[in-house]
Amino acid sequence: MPRYALKVEYHGAPFSGWQRQADRPSVQGAIEAALARLEPGSHTIAAAGRTDAGVHARGQVAQADLAKDWDPFRLSEALNHHLRPDPVAITACARVPDGWHARFSAVERRYTFRILLRRAPAVLEDGQVWQVRHALDAAAMRAGAAHLLGRHDFTTFRSTICQADSPVRTLDALEVEEAEGPSGPEIRLQVRARSFLHNQVRSFAGTLERVGAGAWAPEEVGRALAARDRAACGPVAPPQGLCLAGVGYPVDPFGDR
Amino acid sequence: MPRYALKVEYHGAPFSGWQRQADRPSVQGAIEAALARLEPGSHTIAAAGRTDAGVHARGQVAQADLAKDWDPFRLSEALNHHLRPDPVAITACARVPDGWHARFSAVERRYTFRILLRRAPAVLEDGQVWQVRHALDAAAMRAGAAHLLGRHDFTTFRSTICQADSPVRTLDALEVEEAEGPSGPEIRLQVRARSFLHNQVRSFAGTLERVGAGAWAPEEVGRALAARDRAACGPVAPPQGLCLAGVGYPVDPFGDR
Repeated sequence: MPRYALKVEYHGAPFSGWQRQADRPSVQGAIEAALARLEPGSHTIAAAGRTDAGVHARGQVAQADLAKDWDPFRLSEALNHHLRPDPVAITACARVPDGWHARFSAVERRYTFRILLRRAPAVLEDGQVWQVRHALDAAAMRAGAAHLLGRHDFTTFRSTICQADSPVRTLDALEVEEAEGPSGPEIRLQVRARSFLHNQVRSFAGTLERVGAGAWAPEEVGRALAARDRAACGPVAPPQGLCLAGVGYPVDPFGDR
Repeated sequence: MPRYALKVEYHGAPFSGWQRQADRPSVQGAIEAALARLEPGSHTIAAAGRTDAGVHARGQVAQADLAKDWDPFRLSEALNHHLRPDPVAITACARVPDGWHARFSAVERRYTFRILLRRAPAVLEDGQVWQVRHALDAAAMRAGAAHLLGRHDFTTFRSTICQADSPVRTLDALEVEEAEGPSGPEIRLQVRARSFLHNQVRSFAGTLERVGAGAWAPEEVGRALAARDRAACGPVAPPQGLCLAGVGYPVDPFGDR
């Protein structure tokens, strides 16, 4: 069966997360249902990042095996037609070799976490930011983030229900950017690693917010990491600020070929 | 009664427009209802721009007269509390002199019209762009827009139900910007005038889209203007791309004082 890579954008609010669940809407379930409109029967797709309930994506990558040899552009158009009115869109589609795997071939995941600094409700951002109503010290957040870079046991920063075999990961980037967003000043965390643990980015975001607010000294982030104890983590930030920005592969499946 | 200026942000989708209407939700009605929670009785507010159904605002300005002498910050906080869950937010509030009027004291209105150039549905933009699925020539649109600048009879570009006494307006700016938006390449029209006619910006946007698509030559915009005939206008662009970006006054009521 020909295999296709799909680049997927979605708004996380209406979904219980990426992963298919019985009787609850999921992004995976929405795309599998759209595939079944094209080729009747049951479909099982896989994705690079199994995002949680409420988490958004601009660059999720999934794979689908189809019986027919579809023109990739027509496949994406047909899927987008059947995905309506769910807030899920296929923004790119490509034929990939049989051995290629959306999850196991991925060598990098990139997430953005947006913190909006303003008091009035951000009615035009539609649940796509974490709104914080006090000032944050970006320089202190940067100093805190520096403790997290590199290869570490991230037990402190993963959910107790994380299913990964090992808590060791290598964090390649955690940038604290100050930006003027459409609704006001933002702090955006740009995070990059080969792979992440469950709730890792939201655990970083919630902990660094405490640093920015002055409740934690930057070096306490390093002590929390060294503790290798989930109880040492700051609060976990809410999902709506998080977006899976992109996935890296040795060769971009959507690149010009 | 003390008069307050309110800076208002809203998502236009759930509303029949700014103006209060019997039995249909409006932005004016939502704010007046919130005011009635603070000071029981009937309230009538006025705004600088009476936006149509589906049109958004980031910088609408309204005025409200209250019996009590409110601290402006507390007033905005209380209004935002009572406005939930409607997508309307008071982003600034200031005490203004009795003779000041949100509509009649305004000397400039600024609108942004966003055209998103991509095929896949823009699921993270939530009805805040006009999505066009073909390429647009920004240089041709700029050449077309140049015909509209200055003082003209804009009969061609106003709705047949426009209630303004005169079709003559002075268009101070109509910039055609190419921008990389969060969901892909955009063309943004930045439009500025002392005041506008009903549907004027959407009539500009729909006509200039035709120029960008190559269906109209740029000079046909000038001929359409000179015709002073509504029938000479291009299609009227849909409301969701339009946003009231800001209103200018001789002295900014929300500035530092």
